[in-house]
Parts: sequence; C-alpha cells; structure tokens
Amino acid sequence: MSDPALMTLTEAAAAVRAGDVTSQALAEACLARIAAAQDTLNAFIAVDAEGALAAARACDREAREGRFRGPLHGVPLAHKDMFYRKGQRCTCGSKIRAGFVPDETAEVLERLDAAGAVTLGTLHMSEFAMGPTGHNAQIGRCRNPWSPEHVTGGSSSGSGAAVAARLAFGALGSDTGGSVRLPAAFCGVVGLKPTQGLLSQHGMMGLSESMDCAGPLARSSADVAVLMDVLTGQGTHHADVLSRPVSGLTVGLPTSYYFDGVEPEVQAALDAARRVLEGAGVRVVDVDVPDHSAFAELANLVFTPEAAALHLPWLLERPEDYGPQVRARLMQGLTIPAVQHLQAKQLRVLHARAMIEGPLAACDALLTPALRRRVPTAAETDVAAGTAMAATIAAVSDMTRPLSYLGLPGLVTPVGRDSAGLPVAMQLIGRPRQEATLLALGHAHESTTDWLAAVPPVPGRPAS
Amino acid sequence: MSDPALMTLTEAAAAVRAGDVTSQALAEACLARIAAAQDTLNAFIAVDAEGALAAARACDREAREGRFRGPLHGVPLAHKDMFYRKGQRCTCGSKIRAGFVPDETAEVLERLDAAGAVTLGTLHMSEFAMGPTGHNAQIGRCRNPWSPEHVTGGSSSGSGAAVAARLAFGALGSDTGGSVRLPAAFCGVVGLKPTQGLLSQHGMMGLSESMDCAGPLARSSADVAVLMDVLTGQGTHHADVLSRPVSGLTVGLPTSYYFDGVEPEVQAALDAARRVLEGAGVRVVDVDVPDHSAFAELANLVFTPEAAALHLPWLLERPEDYGPQVRARLMQGLTIPAVQHLQAKQLRVLHARAMIEGPLAACDALLTPALRRRVPTAAETDVAAGTAMAATIAAVSDMTRPLSYLGLPGLVTPVGRDSAGLPVAMQLIGRPRQEATLLALGHAHESTTDWLAAVPPVPGRPAS
Repeated sequence: MSDPALMTLTEAAAAVRAGDVTSQALAEACLARIAAAQDTLNAFIAVDAEGALAAARACDREAREGRFRGPLHGVPLAHKDMFYRKGQRCTCGSKIRAGFVPDETAEVLERLDAAGAVTLGTLHMSEFAMGPTGHNAQIGRCRNPWSPEHVTGGSSSGSGAAVAARLAFGALGSDTGGSVRLPAAFCGVVGLKPTQGLLSQHGMMGLSESMDCAGPLARSSADVAVLMDVLTGQGTHHADVLSRPVSGLTVGLPTSYYFDGVEPEVQAALDAARRVLEGAGVRVVDVDVPDHSAFAELANLVFTPEAAALHLPWLLERPEDYGPQVRARLMQGLTIPAVQHLQAKQLRVLHARAMIEGPLAACDALLTPALRRRVPTAAETDVAAGTAMAATIAAVSDMTRPLSYLGLPGLVTPVGRDSAGLPVAMQLIGRPRQEATLLALGHAHESTTDWLAAVPPVPGRPAS
Repeated sequence: MSDPALMTLTEAAAAVRAGDVTSQALAEACLARIAAAQDTLNAFIAVDAEGALAAARACDREAREGRFRGPLHGVPLAHKDMFYRKGQRCTCGSKIRAGFVPDETAEVLERLDAAGAVTLGTLHMSEFAMGPTGHNAQIGRCRNPWSPEHVTGGSSSGSGAAVAARLAFGALGSDTGGSVRLPAAFCGVVGLKPTQGLLSQHGMMGLSESMDCAGPLARSSADVAVLMDVLTGQGTHHADVLSRPVSGLTVGLPTSYYFDGVEPEVQAALDAARRVLEGAGVRVVDVDVPDHSAFAELANLVFTPEAAALHLPWLLERPEDYGPQVRARLMQGLTIPAVQHLQAKQLRVLHARAMIEGPLAACDALLTPALRRRVPTAAETDVAAGTAMAATIAAVSDMTRPLSYLGLPGLVTPVGRDSAGLPVAMQLIGRPRQEATLLALGHAHESTTDWLAAVPPVPGRPAS
C-alpha cells in the first residue's frame, strides 16, 4: 500500500469514512514522515504523537460504530503555534512566550476539533508571526521541502512546509501581511487569507487586531474549501461551489503595480495559468487598479503600532529576549503618531471601496503573482535588523500586503516551478466574502495542472 | 389658554393626538419664544420658521384624517447643529464648516422624522463639539436661561438652553465627554448619554469614533424615554419601564472620586435626592469603585488623536479659522503616539469590565454629582487656550468624562437649585444598555420633586 499520508485531505477524510483506511494509519504515516523530516525541515515546534494516536484510535472506534464527528473525522492536522489550546504550551515561536500555557482554546481550533480533526502538534512560525521569510532568530529557521537552502516564506513557515512535505493533511496559519499566502506559495500548496473578520480571532495570538486573519493551508483548493466550511460553520457552501463551472467568470490582470518588474520565469508561469483559466472558459481581461504604491506603508502604519502596543510590557522589560529584527520592527511601531495610525485606518475604508467599486466590480477576481521573483534562498534574506531589513521585507511581501491592508480575501495556488525547482504561485484576489469564487477558480486551475500532485524530495519516504 | 410651549413632550404629543392642540399651535408657540429669547440666549444657529410651520400643518391635516406618523406626531424639536440633513446647511458650530451642506441625513434624524417630529431649526454648540462650557469663539457663547451670566455647559449648549427655556420640546445633543449631560445639568433639564454604540452615529459629525454618542435632552425622564424608544427603534421599551416601581432597586454612592471635594450646596442637593429615592423604596448604599484618577487622561488619549486625525487637513490648511482653544486641543492630539492611544483603548475594556463586575454588579445604578461645584459663570470659564485651559476643562467634565471613557450610560436630572438660582443635578450611572433603569430612577425622583416644573425667567413669556 502506498503511503496514506500522500492523500489529499479530501481523499483521507473520504477514506476514513468509507473504512478504507483508519485514522490511526493516517496519524502513524504522518508521524513517521515527521520523524524523518524534522531534522531537515524544522517544521514542528512540538509533536504530540501520543495524543494524536489516542485521538485517532478514538475516531476509529467511533467510525466502527458508524459515528462520525464531522467532515474531518480522523484526519490529522497541525497548526501554527499561536492558536491557543487550553492547558497546552503555546510558544508563538518566541523565547518570551516559551512557557506560555493558555487557559482557553481558540475558536477556530474548537471548530476543527468538533469536525473530528486529529492534532499532530504545533508548527514552526516566525517569532510572534512577524517576518515573511520563515527565519526565526530564536528557534532556527524552517526549511523549504523543495530545497532546504531556500526559505519557506513566513510567518506560517511550518504550515507551508508541513503541508507540502505531507506531514499533515492541512494546517492553520495566520496572515497579517501575507503570512498564510507566502508559505503556501513558496512551498507549493494552497493557502487562503479570508476576508478580514470572517474567521474568529478569539484565542489566537494577537499581532494587529485590524489586520490579523486566521487562514487554512492544504494540498488543494478542494481541501481548503472543506476547511473553510468547518471554520466558518457554513456547512458545505465553499465545497459545493467547486462543482460549479467557472466558464463565464471574468478574471482581471492589473495593469499597474502587480506585474511591474516581475521576473521572466514567474511571468511565464502566470501566462500559462492565464491560458489554463481561459481554457476553462474564464474571460481574462486587463483591468486598471487604483494606485497601490502607498498601501504597504499604510499597512505598516496600521500594523506596527498595534503590535507595539500589545508588546509594550515585554519591550520595556525583556528587550534582549526578542530577535533583533522583530525587536527593531516593534520599536519602529512605538514611534508612530496616533494620527498617522488613525488616518491609515480611515483611508483603508476608502481604498477598499475604490477596489470593490472599481476593478472588483468589473471582474470576479484579479490574478497577480504571489511574489514578483523566484523563491529566495535563506542567505539572500537573512538580513536581521540591518539596513536591508525594510527593503527585503517589502520585496517579499509586496504582492500580499495590499490585501491585508484592504481586508480583501486572497488565494494562492501553484502555477509552475522555477529553474531551481521551487514553486511559483498565483494570487487570486476577490471581493469581500467571495472566497468561494476564488476557490472555484483555483480548483479549475488545479483540475488541469499537476503542480499539486508532485511530492517534494525532502524528506522523501520515511525509512520504515 | 396657557402657553402650549410649556407642556412636556409627552403632554404635547398626547394633546396633538387627542385633538386638544394643533401642531401648528405648538410650533407657533415655540417660534414666538425663540424670537423673544434668541438675542439673550443665542440658543439657535438657524431657525426654520417656514419649514416648521409647513410641517406642522401637514401633521395637522393628517391628524384630522386620523393618521399619525408615530409617537412624536406634530411635536416640535430642534437639534444640535451637527446632525446632518440632506441639502441643509450644517455648521458644526464652526467657521470652517460654515457653508457645509451634507448630502445625507443622520439616521437618528430619520427616525425622529419617521415618528412625526417637526424640526424648528438647528441649535448652538461648542465649535466642533469641543468644549464643556458653551463658549464658542466663532459664534459667541450660548447663555443659561436661568442666568445669562452663567454658562450653559457644552458642547450641546443650545440643546440645554432651548429645552430649559421651552423653545423646543426636546433636542438631540452629542456626548463625547459630557456634552449632553453637562448642558442638561447646567440648564436644569434631563439628559441621557446612552451606552456607547447604542444609537447610530451615521450622518452625525464625527469627533471621536470610539466615544461619540448621540443623546436626547428633554423636560423629564418620561420625555427622554419616549425619545429613546424612537431613537433605538425599540417600541415602548423605555417608556414602559417608567411605570414599574423602583422599590427594591439598589443605588450605590461611590466612596471615592465622585464625592471628593464636592461643594456643600451640591452635596446638600444630592443628600436630598438620596432621601427622595429612599422614600420611593430604593436602597441606597455606599459602594467602592475602581480608581478613577486616570480615566480623564485615558479618555483624552482615546479622543484627541481621533479628533486630530479627522481635522488634520483643516489644521494644516486653515489653522487660523479655529478658535484658539479648539485648535490647541486638536494640536495636542497630533503629538500622541499611536501606542499610547491603542493602550488607552485596550485598558478601556478592562476598566469597563471592572466597573461592570464590581460596583455595577452590586448596584442597579450609581449616584454621583453631575458637577462637583455650582454652575460657573462665563467669566470664570472663559480661558481660551491659556495655561488654565486643561484644569478648567477637567474641573467641568471630571464627573462625566469617566463614563465616556468606560462607554457606560449616564442620566442627569435636576435635584436642586444653588444659592445663585442655578440648577444642581445628579448623574445616574448604569450598566451597558440599562438606560431604562436609569430613566425609571429619574422618573421616580421627578415624580416627587418639582425642579423640572419651574420655567426659567429668561426669556419669560413672549410678548405676543
């Protein structure tokens, strides 16, 4: 029998329900791959093998009695280590919270639990979810399963790596400036940043109340749709939309900002994606978008003071316990006048309206790169807090950060491979609460391409 | 026939419905008093005699056909000049917006309109609703009907003066730090600052999104209850509560902050109010409250940057068109770091919880002064932007500002008269959305006292 960990989430859930595989077998397969991969990838912060196997066996007992908790019955997942679970350590990827034990459970975890998910452990993340590359000065960096020299993207680095390497069938990340979308893009899986406010932030580490979003990563848009149905409590709304044809939908290619200076290999992959969508009956048109040049800085004006306000007690008492880049960015937040912060939030409403009433009224979605360049190496982006910090962060997140500022949903899905073998992804941007449209477009693309089928060579099949 | 303008709102509405008086007669009586009083009081910014009379006659035609729009059918009101009405000039008490014509109507005005209210005009206010005394460097100050040398309180100065002088049966004000409660208290009428967020802020001049509240002023708690039912769209919830006995309710007297340094005349009036409530069967007890000493400054950290952000374009382009005090306060808002603003907002949640789970769990309401001292004169408080500004503003608003910070509802109603003949008021503080309890307590007090029955000598009866 082939490794059951190689199934998609949708396949695994169906197999458990049909009795074709046990949850225990799924968990054992994932745990074997985690054991083989951990030294190389550093994707997990904590593995709970015993708890996962016990939960899997409980699911199997129920399944034998014909009882199924929900659409994720017996499916092993793992999540970024910032979703609180009562009584279980939650480090937030940091030294400062290394011993933090929450007294409540995140609402999104409760929903996954209720749907029958099994939890394998907690995943690597950038320190306090700040950092778009996957570097972490406190716990070492997470490595890209396609090439350990390359970064995973961050801050949901472990979520991207674990899903890509088939260590878990799906994962939660969080996205405040690109933190779900970048790891999904860099690791070659599907990631969704939902509309601002759609998913509960309760029991999730706060960074920026105005921009934080929980979001799922998985091995296909169909898998993400199943997770979104559980996370939103909307039954099978998202999953059902996948079966609808996308012909007749209109996708816009922004004529400014998003394609400025795109590297040729990335452009070629996006051109191919365009043709795939056109082949599925999607109308692809050029569309003007409002000037995006200020959005990254406006996002910073919203985000950094909110983060600094939350961190102020630690910044004053334990500055030495932060990594230099995170500390430097938080300290910058201390210097921003309230009026600038508030104006950035006021402008946010106007800018979002301009996008919704402009290009997103003319199109069902916009298609952009997820990153203008090929996935960078760790060495290229290991800038700590030096003078290159701001430019490096901006260059990694300048496709994703505008959506965090605007509060719009964004889906990334792979559309190719670069000359180094690293994934290239597109980002689909939608109207508020139109995640299902993005998932339908992603599903249509995935149905006629095989970028998601390939399994990264690292860690390879476990020895056992 | 006695002057129909001397009825309460409740009486006037009933009289129109019964056919005992016409709306036209009510409007004419109010307009005659306005004409007689305007030079002395300066309570109106604009009077729309023609529009009011036309609306009143329309109400009378409908009444003759047995059709009544709602509980305010034919009742003349007037509102602080910061509630937008499409196509009608709205000055916000300022030079900068002297020619502003909104293209939308405030939701609270739409609700009053739908209930049948007739609008007499727009009322005096502190420039941009900033200032607790009723001074206005741009349009002159509003004068207290009980004594023109004394201030009305602000910023809803015209609302307090007009209701007290029987120029209108009720009025909307706004309250960001005491701006409904202070004019009601100083002018001897009833004013309610509702729970933060209970009433729509749509189409109302913004000052501080986090703390702005629309609120009604009228001649009794019963009148305010009718207005609240219209403004909230809750049928007769508030009005019905008035008929319930208050015996068995518990009112707490805070053992710190609110009674520190209260002037003897004010204390004596509050002692009498306590006895009135006890006579109605209310249990009055001492109660500890969390330390309030920082709340005024925390309120400033929330409010002034929000105001400054809204005013920034005008501050940069037309600084000379502000009065010196308003400009100085807005400029202070420019200097506040975002982190201080955000921390003040975070602490707000914790401080409100401590009040709700502490004293407001032990009591149905708290009783405090509305002002620690007697109503000041204009000369005492005309400080412009000098060194006395902060202390003067604080001394006038230090009983009301904590509730604006905490987001709790507060009702003021008169409990006596000082040696100069100016009103003394109590403030009742309630749990969130328990306005009806405050109104029931106010009504109980008003039912056995006659402070609201007296008509101020200025302007006296109109000559006609």
